Amino acid sequence: MANDKRSLAELANHDDFLTRHNGPDEGDVQQMLETLGLPDIESLMTSTIPGDIRLARELALEEPRGEAEALEYLKRLARQNKTFKNYIGQGYYPTYMPAVIQRNVLENPGWYTAYTPYQPEIAQGRLEGLLNFQQVVMDLTGMPIANASLLDEATAAAEAMALCRRANKKVKSACFFVADDVLPQTLDVLRTRAAYFGFELVVAPAETLPEHEVFGALLQYPGATGEVRDLAPLLEQAKERRVMTCVAADLMSLVLLKEPGALGADIVVGSSQRFGVPMGYGGPHAAFFAASDALKRSLPGRIIGVSKDARGQRALRMAMQTREQHIRREKATSNICTAQALLANIAGFYAVYHGADGLRTIASRIHRLTTLLAEGLKQHGVTLAHDSWFDTLTLKGLDHGQVHGRSMAHEINLRYDAAGTIGVSLDETTTAADVVTLFDVLLGDEHDLSVSELDRHVRETGTTGIPAHLDRESDFLTHPTFHRYRSETAMLRYLKRLENKDLSLTHAMIPLGSCTMKLNATSEMVPISWPEFANIHPFAPHDQVAGYKQMIDELSAFLVEITGYDSISMQPNSGAQGEYAGLVAIRRYQKAQGQGHRDICLIPSSAHGTNPASAAMAQMKVVVVDCDDEGNIDLEDLRGKAEKHSESLSAIMLTYPSTHGVFEESVREACRIVHDHGGQVYIDGANMNAQVGLCRPGDFGGDVSHLNLHKTFCIPHGGGGPGMGPIGVKAHLAPFVPNHVVTPLPGVDEKAGAVAATAYGSASILPISWAYIKMMGGRGMKRATQLAILNANYIAKRLEGHYPVLYKGRNGTVAHECILDIRPLKAASAISEEDIAKRLMDYGFHAPTMSFPVAGTLMVEPTESESRYEIDRFCDAMIAIREEIQRIETGEWPADNNPLVMAPHTQADLMEADWERPYSRELGAFPTEATKAAKYWPAVNRVDNVYGDRNLICTCPPIDAYRDDV
Amino acid sequence: MANDKRSLAELANHDDFLTRHNGPDEGDVQQMLETLGLPDIESLMTSTIPGDIRLARELALEEPRGEAEALEYLKRLARQNKTFKNYIGQGYYPTYMPAVIQRNVLENPGWYTAYTPYQPEIAQGRLEGLLNFQQVVMDLTGMPIANASLLDEATAAAEAMALCRRANKKVKSACFFVADDVLPQTLDVLRTRAAYFGFELVVAPAETLPEHEVFGALLQYPGATGEVRDLAPLLEQAKERRVMTCVAADLMSLVLLKEPGALGADIVVGSSQRFGVPMGYGGPHAAFFAASDALKRSLPGRIIGVSKDARGQRALRMAMQTREQHIRREKATSNICTAQALLANIAGFYAVYHGADGLRTIASRIHRLTTLLAEGLKQHGVTLAHDSWFDTLTLKGLDHGQVHGRSMAHEINLRYDAAGTIGVSLDETTTAADVVTLFDVLLGDEHDLSVSELDRHVRETGTTGIPAHLDRESDFLTHPTFHRYRSETAMLRYLKRLENKDLSLTHAMIPLGSCTMKLNATSEMVPISWPEFANIHPFAPHDQVAGYKQMIDELSAFLVEITGYDSISMQPNSGAQGEYAGLVAIRRYQKAQGQGHRDICLIPSSAHGTNPASAAMAQMKVVVVDCDDEGNIDLEDLRGKAEKHSESLSAIMLTYPSTHGVFEESVREACRIVHDHGGQVYIDGANMNAQVGLCRPGDFGGDVSHLNLHKTFCIPHGGGGPGMGPIGVKAHLAPFVPNHVVTPLPGVDEKAGAVAATAYGSASILPISWAYIKMMGGRGMKRATQLAILNANYIAKRLEGHYPVLYKGRNGTVAHECILDIRPLKAASAISEEDIAKRLMDYGFHAPTMSFPVAGTLMVEPTESESRYEIDRFCDAMIAIREEIQRIETGEWPADNNPLVMAPHTQADLMEADWERPYSRELGAFPTEATKAAKYWPAVNRVDNVYGDRNLICTCPPIDAYRDDV
Repeated sequence: MANDKRSLAELANHDDFLTRHNGPDEGDVQQMLETLGLPDIESLMTSTIPGDIRLARELALEEPRGEAEALEYLKRLARQNKTFKNYIGQGYYPTYMPAVIQRNVLENPGWYTAYTPYQPEIAQGRLEGLLNFQQVVMDLTGMPIANASLLDEATAAAEAMALCRRANKKVKSACFFVADDVLPQTLDVLRTRAAYFGFELVVAPAETLPEHEVFGALLQYPGATGEVRDLAPLLEQAKERRVMTCVAADLMSLVLLKEPGALGADIVVGSSQRFGVPMGYGGPHAAFFAASDALKRSLPGRIIGVSKDARGQRALRMAMQTREQHIRREKATSNICTAQALLANIAGFYAVYHGADGLRTIASRIHRLTTLLAEGLKQHGVTLAHDSWFDTLTLKGLDHGQVHGRSMAHEINLRYDAAGTIGVSLDETTTAADVVTLFDVLLGDEHDLSVSELDRHVRETGTTGIPAHLDRESDFLTHPTFHRYRSETAMLRYLKRLENKDLSLTHAMIPLGSCTMKLNATSEMVPISWPEFANIHPFAPHDQVAGYKQMIDELSAFLVEITGYDSISMQPNSGAQGEYAGLVAIRRYQKAQGQGHRDICLIPSSAHGTNPASAAMAQMKVVVVDCDDEGNIDLEDLRGKAEKHSESLSAIMLTYPSTHGVFEESVREACRIVHDHGGQVYIDGANMNAQVGLCRPGDFGGDVSHLNLHKTFCIPHGGGGPGMGPIGVKAHLAPFVPNHVVTPLPGVDEKAGAVAATAYGSASILPISWAYIKMMGGRGMKRATQLAILNANYIAKRLEGHYPVLYKGRNGTVAHECILDIRPLKAASAISEEDIAKRLMDYGFHAPTMSFPVAGTLMVEPTESESRYEIDRFCDAMIAIREEIQRIETGEWPADNNPLVMAPHTQADLMEADWERPYSRELGAFPTEATKAAKYWPAVNRVDNVYGDRNLICTCPPIDAYRDDV
Repeated sequence: MANDKRSLAELANHDDFLTRHNGPDEGDVQQMLETLGLPDIESLMTSTIPGDIRLARELALEEPRGEAEALEYLKRLARQNKTFKNYIGQGYYPTYMPAVIQRNVLENPGWYTAYTPYQPEIAQGRLEGLLNFQQVVMDLTGMPIANASLLDEATAAAEAMALCRRANKKVKSACFFVADDVLPQTLDVLRTRAAYFGFELVVAPAETLPEHEVFGALLQYPGATGEVRDLAPLLEQAKERRVMTCVAADLMSLVLLKEPGALGADIVVGSSQRFGVPMGYGGPHAAFFAASDALKRSLPGRIIGVSKDARGQRALRMAMQTREQHIRREKATSNICTAQALLANIAGFYAVYHGADGLRTIASRIHRLTTLLAEGLKQHGVTLAHDSWFDTLTLKGLDHGQVHGRSMAHEINLRYDAAGTIGVSLDETTTAADVVTLFDVLLGDEHDLSVSELDRHVRETGTTGIPAHLDRESDFLTHPTFHRYRSETAMLRYLKRLENKDLSLTHAMIPLGSCTMKLNATSEMVPISWPEFANIHPFAPHDQVAGYKQMIDELSAFLVEITGYDSISMQPNSGAQGEYAGLVAIRRYQKAQGQGHRDICLIPSSAHGTNPASAAMAQMKVVVVDCDDEGNIDLEDLRGKAEKHSESLSAIMLTYPSTHGVFEESVREACRIVHDHGGQVYIDGANMNAQVGLCRPGDFGGDVSHLNLHKTFCIPHGGGGPGMGPIGVKAHLAPFVPNHVVTPLPGVDEKAGAVAATAYGSASILPISWAYIKMMGGRGMKRATQLAILNANYIAKRLEGHYPVLYKGRNGTVAHECILDIRPLKAASAISEEDIAKRLMDYGFHAPTMSFPVAGTLMVEPTESESRYEIDRFCDAMIAIREEIQRIETGEWPADNNPLVMAPHTQADLMEADWERPYSRELGAFPTEATKAAKYWPAVNRVDNVYGDRNLICTCPPIDAYRDDV
């Protein structure tokens, strides 16, 4: 120790995590600053961030905690949750995630750090997983097309309602029918959406559907009370009256029940949660959305389709990538961006691993046990509300108090309805012993029921809860994929094979502008696997969720301090949902102020398409504000328009720093203008990673912002979801954030309807953001922001001699990302930003964001987690590619035969006996030493998007289209 | 349900795991039986297994439990363990495994299912990890060479003692000096080994070393009492007297202490446990073994060396693969096979992630806190046994009862010595708050000590526990590998890059004969990560390990039923250790019977080299028994030799089914002959996978067997360890299995010394085997055995027209593996079994076992986990390779330029601009459709073993030898 002069405090390892999260070390920082010609990092901040918005103090957050210490603390919180057995149902069920899937997908960074598969050549693995998911949905619902997941069943139902309106021009009524036995949270979300679409909801017994003049209808199958109703006659009558029909269905029940497609539904939605995804206090889970053939080009969300690559080989990609909000912007009726890719993959793999046989066993067991429960209860005089069921019974005439007392003693949750009935929903994990316990709880200990005797009885009598004509008759999951991987060895190899097709953060930086692909640290991810977080029902009694409550409260407090807002709503489960919730809060607030007429939303021309779509969904009229040549908001235009619409100005939606990657100097002034005209300021938090610790939207004028926890706060992208989009609001908006019908939130107006299925959205992934903030502390996050900005400026500096950097701030700096202008180069060489994107794959990189926010550009965001080594490797690749383009410009390489247009290069290319290209195999596939040492291979050659959209196939291809690739 | 007639019992999913573990489904089985011309699987069993040894009943084990149910049960057991804070020390310390390493190495099948890296071209990833480990050991110990791990510190010390004897012919004394402050378990193991080597141990204070006439000496550094002694004068005097010196050192202390190499040690051993590997109730942990340059070709265990491949590129491989037991067999003084590769990799990665700086901070913090503890205690009048320390204090004059009472109240374990002293050892996880608690426990609550004031005091006074001349002066971990991966992102990519270089069970079957590379199911692996199993000190009080105790008792009961023995000793932590422990038990038993003179061990000529080596180590004389032309033991020869040595016959060592892959008909008779002559029967359990549920060694004549839990019972191979080799014994041998000096075992003779460092060997991996047996049940394991035999016979059948199958049973069947004779083919084509092995890599397979048990052959064992699909893929590859050889035989391809001698093919080959080979690139690297769909790439071309052994380099290569491959 003689040689260690440090104090004990200096030897403590509390700050360890900072050096783990951040890529550049001290030496890197010095060298990068040198390149920028700056003395220190503070100079860069001063040059970049307007002085009038800089936070003049440090964030008032705790000191960074070490990884072990943070996890220990969080474990203590988690232990405050009580993991009772749950029979609450209502769309959430205990389930077993097969261990091989848990470990090798959910807990594998090769899966969870991947990005949305916009670049299909390096995403064939998860695209195949998502195609499996679509196939499962199509097969079980009996519909010809399905998408690759939505956020939750309730919002999927809302999307269905909107699609009914878009697709049904024949019925003029603005009414939408909702059966009175839909899930309560679904109805809650529908009410919110309908209010701002100008629809009227007709909530009535399903049987009355034919009596109503409506443009569309939603029925639940089985009903929330468990009743299995034959929907065919109702759907038929609706069709005759040109009513579009939606069925919200339970995926597990469809294993045994006649499929909604066969009953006549136009749209089928639901949740795939019980296919192996933990309840997680409400999410994330993958909702599904399936539709009739006539609607196939109108589906919301992402759809995976089969196309071919440049060699004519089968290749998957997202079909029809240009979605509703991109095409229609301010006329859109959907703002869906994020899906639940990781969870959809898990649900799909669950089906692959079990196959139709396994699912039949599981569903039959659930149904049998429910039947035994029903039979036993009936024998003891309990009245059932219905004489049909799949897994849910509604019981009449039981004493709530007595049953509740016994159920708590047995650590069991039942559903207690206001009407005095008690609901019980069984699931995959229920055993015969559990049914006995249920008898004890429901009947008291005095009964003499034996499950095996009941089983003999019901088999002899043929007792069932499924009406005979509702037995499923059709096959499902007949595709070989659902037969081949039944042993764990086969499944493991399948999962690893798919994983290894995809490029993720485990391979290289993913420099996507505006997507913030930073480290998703293992210690942040570990808690989501804990049973105390994973196995909690969203409608569990309050006293069982104290751990969740405190974790969410702490996270809210962190975010309040970080953003400068007064409170946080955790409900929105995606960024786009956050936008919608924020705008709805503004509208509710203004209405409460007697200003309900205010409906103009100002949006700069540079905005992401989701902004105007969200505004439209909140029944606002979008007025576009111009940008000047430097990409900044044209203050004069803003002033003029604010003035012009002063009486009806509702809000402005700003992104900060701008989507152009610049800290606009005038942001405070822009906010002031809007406020002066009675408007509210919505600041899109997509670029929050450039602000944390340096400035706060709540300080410089924002009234509300959403935060992409899956960007700035380390929730991984999961290959295209989950996301999480909580909103921060000023105090005056706090009562108007979304509430929840089943689990009301304190401090929120009880009439404020929900925007998502559960009170806290995707609650089970909140520990990720909590852990990030806890382990970084205020000091660490500020440092991260500085490094993110430093890294971006270093890239801009290194590349500016090779590619023009499109927008910069007043001192020539950029924020946390930079836009490279490819247009001049394209004009000279015919090489496009897409060619560069594909060529980067050969160099082992994911492409930057293409053509957003400006067509013909590439937007690069390095984040703070990338080291100078990796950033230099990227810059070197970009410069080498520029030199390759030079050889095309000079005519050395023909425009149609060069490494860029032929990119990406695959193993199939290298196999070619005759190499008829003007460059070597080595240059094609191994352009750098790094690729020679560790090559990531794109699985297919360039994918033909046009062909795929023209020939839309969204099912697993027939087996002869597969190579022998088990 | 109308369409599901199954009973509830049939719908229950208790047997789910069977279909997950076993590869072939019902359809596969039928088709394979058809190929074999057999009506059912029982016919195959009848044809294969001698009737006189068949188990006439089912195993009396429970019905299979579902994965979730088994884990739930095990979790309840685990919760009975108490995870107190541990200051017991003595070679085991709490530590933090970095989460990124835990998730991506320990919990990643890409790492844990890999095999020992005998095939270096497909093992460069873990070879690099092991090279890192060697570098860490060399740097910290200051020695020029280190091996890639041994089983534990105690056996490493025993190996050191044996090496001293081998290397020191100058000193004739049979005495070995052991300092009286070595770890007690080390002394225990040394006593056992010394007894059968015929050495006498001189146990005395270290200072007295110069007074003794010994061939070697072992000193502990720091001593078990915590004292940091300057060993230099002792080692110098020893050297002058030609005494070989060994130092058992604590790796963490060497960060601050002068390295043993600089002090003059010839050999340095120790444990790397506290480099991130959980205590796990005693193991597995990687011990290290480093030595002087003069000893570099005599080191026990495996050594990773740097060589070059066919392209002249750097390539790693195991150096000098032919080990002691292979060369010297019955003259061997070491039988080491298994290493602790997975744990050595983890320890190495821990050092990579922390680097020298991080380790200095950790070690300095440990030492500082220890110093503060010492200072505070001294201020309150406590007497320290020594005035030097690194992390351990021995305290005098405290009241054991009072301190114990307070420590239990604080859930803290201290070390209570028989001499009345109390020991406290600090570690990486100790905080300032913990030191305050220690003051409370040791002094009572009345003290007024403040850690920060103490810190100020010791810094001002320069107080330290390290004598000034023992401060470390030299650098360590200066190689770039220990600088580059400090952020989690960089580390993650490094780990994934290494993983992806290696072929594991996640890619393809690994058909290694005699190695049983079956599924290592995720559910089996999950429990080893539970803190209740991971964070238990092996010397924790009995009442804190009730969960371990019950799990081990249950596992023992399972194994008793499976083997037909009467009890199990879990101590041996490898198969070879099991052999040794079994033979020692025989010798102890015979001695107790007054038959101590019996020392002849009969061993068939086909035995694995470890058998005679183990016999030699148990001081037995090996007499080889001949085999007949069919590979069976020559009964006449056996009879003759048993008779000849009747008076001195100690034992026979048999492998069953034989290493030739055949159920020998005469096994019962062979056992009888030996018993008739007063001998004991040792049945090597390496091939137990062919017996479980069908026959039991304890029934047909065995007195003792070891079981390779890492083969038959699903502990993964971990890329070369851990293994686990418990022994089953008949009741008469039960008192003579290994005991343990610190934690004595019930029912075992108290004088029976240990063979491993802890009472239950590698206890933390026992849940893997427990879970396997629990989830399979007797029924499932029997089925697995049948399928393993079926798969092997199917392979033999499919390949017999292409490669002669060397040995078969009386009905033309093989057991669970088969030997393909390459010798005729080699004579005709000059193609060797090695060429075929390397060519299989191009087809995506790991090679079968080469040249064991017969030179010039390949031994194939498919296990039950491989499906017919995968086995057909393998057979197709073997047949295609045979056809390739045909083209060489016919002269179509030259003998020196064909796909076999050029194998394996790498990306570098494909890059070649000029392809001057008579076959295509495609045939070279993508010989099948499967490889086109998912190619596994060998990282290097064929490795030059001779070059590597001749130019032995076992350190990380200088940086300019690296490609730019961060």
